[in-house]
Amino acid sequence: MDIDRLKAQVSFITEIDKLKQVLRRTITIDQDRNENDAEHSWHTATMAFLLSEYAGEKEIDLLKVIKMMLIHDIVEIDAGDTYCYSDVDQQAKVERESRGANRIFGLLPGDQARDLHALWGEFEAQETAESRFAAALDRLQPLLLNFHTGGKTWKKHGVSKEQVLKRAGPIRDSSPVLWEYAERLIDEAARMGLLCR
Amino acid sequence: MDIDRLKAQVSFITEIDKLKQVLRRTITIDQDRNENDAEHSWHTATMAFLLSEYAGEKEIDLLKVIKMMLIHDIVEIDAGDTYCYSDVDQQAKVERESRGANRIFGLLPGDQARDLHALWGEFEAQETAESRFAAALDRLQPLLLNFHTGGKTWKKHGVSKEQVLKRAGPIRDSSPVLWEYAERLIDEAARMGLLCR
Repeated sequence: MDIDRLKAQVSFITEIDKLKQVLRRTITIDQDRNENDAEHSWHTATMAFLLSEYAGEKEIDLLKVIKMMLIHDIVEIDAGDTYCYSDVDQQAKVERESRGANRIFGLLPGDQARDLHALWGEFEAQETAESRFAAALDRLQPLLLNFHTGGKTWKKHGVSKEQVLKRAGPIRDSSPVLWEYAERLIDEAARMGLLCR
Repeated sequence: MDIDRLKAQVSFITEIDKLKQVLRRTITIDQDRNENDAEHSWHTATMAFLLSEYAGEKEIDLLKVIKMMLIHDIVEIDAGDTYCYSDVDQQAKVERESRGANRIFGLLPGDQARDLHALWGEFEAQETAESRFAAALDRLQPLLLNFHTGGKTWKKHGVSKEQVLKRAGPIRDSSPVLWEYAERLIDEAARMGLLCR
């Protein structure tokens, strides 16, 4: 047994417990509380294997997509969640997340640190079929939660239909079927008055 | 687009949001609050791909193990979490969980309902290498959390070293390396007074 290797892996596993404390703006469907990043990661990873038939690009590596969903927000332990409709300094956000990736993935043994850093970088770069499908799920999940909570978060932050359509863009780019569904849902949300004009 | 199929999938995806409300006895490392099943499922799924090298049986299907971790507790939306050291009626627990599986997996289109029901059944039956490794992770994760929270839950419920060793049995059955690590951790916990005599 390479005890140093296993200890490094366990130190990462206990460190990422903090993801359960990183709150998102989205609220859970049946509870009036904010969802956290660990819950969101579980939800999108589960969606990945239930909805993989809708990935528009053929031959996606489902295991890679699920791994991406599981780790895509880990950098937010250091960088914090950035609300998608807020006016943030993108360069500062990228730098915060990059430092977070270096520190947190760096807890792992070298080979796994490189693998996870590369997987996260692939997700961020949006240049592969897997990362595009992962991004589609990352956008579809809060859309479902916002719709099924009466648009509470949208109303609170004055979010418009145009903003939601733009934010959902990665769904269009990756999956025609999920995009058709998402567009209908956004139309219905607008008709129901869940979005600001 | 087969809209009925997609609607069934979405109804399952929104239903399982309730897993975020099923509280476990384990508490999160940095917060004084109970972990929920969605967080636990994310944590163990992530552990699956970080620790798969330690699966004692060769040729495990990692994608299957991760899928198992993601869905293994979904039946608890209906059946509730059963504390592992409580004196419960096992037969009643099995029946509750079976009814939960029928209802919740039954929301999915037929093929996926059968697949997920079978995957959950495989986890419960503990007859395959994948289900045994999944069970090992399901036991190792709360062990790590309990150790790193000063055994708070163990102390509260008067749990002994013998009980924890017995509960950790699936780790021994699946992974010699993780078992060696777990045994050391339990020994240390006992020396530190985190467990009852």
